Amino acid sequence: MQISKFMTPEIIFGNQSIAQIGESLRRLGATRVFLVSDPGVVNAGWVERIMQILSQQKLAYHLWTNVTANPKDYEIHAGVAEYRALECDAILGVGGGSAIDAAKAIALLGTNDGSIVDYEGVDKITHPLPPMVMVPTTAGSGSEVSQFSIIVDSARKVKMAIISKSLIPDIAIIDPQTLMTKDRQLTANTGMDVLTHAIESYISLAATPLTEVHSLQAMRLIAKHLRPSVASQYNEEAKQAMAMASLQAGIAFSNAILGAVHAMSHQLGGFLDAPHGEVNAILLPHVLEYNFIAAPEKYRHIAECLGESTAGVSLPESSRLALKAVKELSRDLDCPESLSAIGLVPDQIELLSAHALLDVCMTTNPRDMNATDVATLFRQAL
Amino acid sequence: MQISKFMTPEIIFGNQSIAQIGESLRRLGATRVFLVSDPGVVNAGWVERIMQILSQQKLAYHLWTNVTANPKDYEIHAGVAEYRALECDAILGVGGGSAIDAAKAIALLGTNDGSIVDYEGVDKITHPLPPMVMVPTTAGSGSEVSQFSIIVDSARKVKMAIISKSLIPDIAIIDPQTLMTKDRQLTANTGMDVLTHAIESYISLAATPLTEVHSLQAMRLIAKHLRPSVASQYNEEAKQAMAMASLQAGIAFSNAILGAVHAMSHQLGGFLDAPHGEVNAILLPHVLEYNFIAAPEKYRHIAECLGESTAGVSLPESSRLALKAVKELSRDLDCPESLSAIGLVPDQIELLSAHALLDVCMTTNPRDMNATDVATLFRQAL
Repeated sequence: MQISKFMTPEIIFGNQSIAQIGESLRRLGATRVFLVSDPGVVNAGWVERIMQILSQQKLAYHLWTNVTANPKDYEIHAGVAEYRALECDAILGVGGGSAIDAAKAIALLGTNDGSIVDYEGVDKITHPLPPMVMVPTTAGSGSEVSQFSIIVDSARKVKMAIISKSLIPDIAIIDPQTLMTKDRQLTANTGMDVLTHAIESYISLAATPLTEVHSLQAMRLIAKHLRPSVASQYNEEAKQAMAMASLQAGIAFSNAILGAVHAMSHQLGGFLDAPHGEVNAILLPHVLEYNFIAAPEKYRHIAECLGESTAGVSLPESSRLALKAVKELSRDLDCPESLSAIGLVPDQIELLSAHALLDVCMTTNPRDMNATDVATLFRQAL
Repeated sequence: MQISKFMTPEIIFGNQSIAQIGESLRRLGATRVFLVSDPGVVNAGWVERIMQILSQQKLAYHLWTNVTANPKDYEIHAGVAEYRALECDAILGVGGGSAIDAAKAIALLGTNDGSIVDYEGVDKITHPLPPMVMVPTTAGSGSEVSQFSIIVDSARKVKMAIISKSLIPDIAIIDPQTLMTKDRQLTANTGMDVLTHAIESYISLAATPLTEVHSLQAMRLIAKHLRPSVASQYNEEAKQAMAMASLQAGIAFSNAILGAVHAMSHQLGGFLDAPHGEVNAILLPHVLEYNFIAAPEKYRHIAECLGESTAGVSLPESSRLALKAVKELSRDLDCPESLSAIGLVPDQIELLSAHALLDVCMTTNPRDMNATDVATLFRQAL
């Protein structure tokens, strides 16, 4: 038995919970808040509502929204310069994975010197970060509870995984009502990202009994609620369930790490600026098929949690039902099925495969992979 | 939908994990450690081993073991006087629930004025506590991850529940090897306590999807591993599983609170100094039968997790299997079945019932109770 570690932030979950943002920041000693968000969330009206909450608590704040999907190193450096110039002392991130990852990276450089690329990898952070409160508006990245921040090194066109328990926010505030302003495609993409987190964390070599229960529960919720959530923007039950699925998958992968889908999709995000959830949806069935022989028992549990009936079915057969369930879900949501549709061309595959092998998420993939294996999977998904 | 909150400490789990006690305390800024333990744990040799680990990290420490089962207010006050006189700046608790609850109460008064009785109830703590690392040696109280400290008010002969997220330790270190020095009766009693935590947290009015997965997984582990753990002191697989069950039940009840079993057993602990796990084992079937109509669906899940087959069985019938499974387990472990055996006499019941209604654990019991209901249950268990 290996020694395992487990950590979560303080979690506040429920409709209207964003009303607690102000007192949460106060409780952490914040006086001047650097509010990181993105234009989509601003347009949906959430940022204005949150700025009112901060004003009611007499907290000074500065809004910063210069972040793009797949946040870039130079965006972080510009953000940190503002954070310092304005003498802020706390970070509030509101948005999808990009806004929250950017908020965490700015917090990192708020108290640690150098460039964000210096912190790629595991446990490179030396000084404690400023207080952080994160409010996800997609379900979603799970970044509000995770020890990850994924930032693009623009020189190398590589997505860097920065991993440290210092990156776990102090407080995560999850209000399912914020999901009602997402369009259907974003709902589908981010939902498939949650499914990928749940499955990869479950079959990860670093999974533990503490993380497995959350991975499996996320799958059950997705199986029941992701289709209705995509079908209907204001389905409150579905939004609550998907917010909970995202949270549970986030708790799981923060502690159990991920696998080859993420190691590969990080490359496409860095190289082609491709949308993370969409790329995961395309890659997941292929990687799942490849990893099958590493964990047939676990695949059977995945099939069951995704709603397949395995009674009286052999282990190999029932475990393959997991793959069937994932493919059907992806098809029902009209997710794209090919990487060429998002701009990948064959002669890029060799380089991206070499980089994927170096991604930290590859270390916990349950089946061994070499560069040829990765390239074969990229080609299958082309 | 109500707003729910969820918190855990940083958790380190696994054989040999106690080797990380020193660096964990260092990381929290400790220089002079107040080490709270009890004579049983000292005799088993664990405290000496841990003092070596502290010395290796060049941490000064002071050993304090003047704590009894159901720790008393005056013990806490004596402990705090030593903590202050020796100018300690961190707390390390090693032992069962009594040692860890005492360690948390000493930490509380280390930075907050007054008597421990001033802090009875929810959220009475105003100043942050000193760094706390907790190492449970029973599976167990779950106190190493919980926001509870249960201390006897000796004047009133009442067990006070002190509840605050400030009481959640910074780091919980769980080493299943420490369970191998427990005798069979302590293993059975503490195991039934874990079962009570799992069941009461699951049917609690404050249960959430985040806590339910941990409650249910604890039940599965108990159903499979508690009998072997009582049968064989050195069964490594069983000890690991019961350590994990205790941890998961602790995470669940810290966030979902408990119910009438605990509200009632706290009274017997305070009034008769009765062993907590033993009293819970006696009360659990009676309270379970009373609460049945509040949550039949949940009872069915309990039955399934405890190993009962519910396929093709009606809901009322399958849910009653939960009660059967609990009774059989208790009988297999030779747990006592009557409160008179631990010294309760009928004319004490009225007073204890009145006090039980005021216990904070009663507020989350899923079925309403008045003083007559409580007294009836005490009499049934007599």
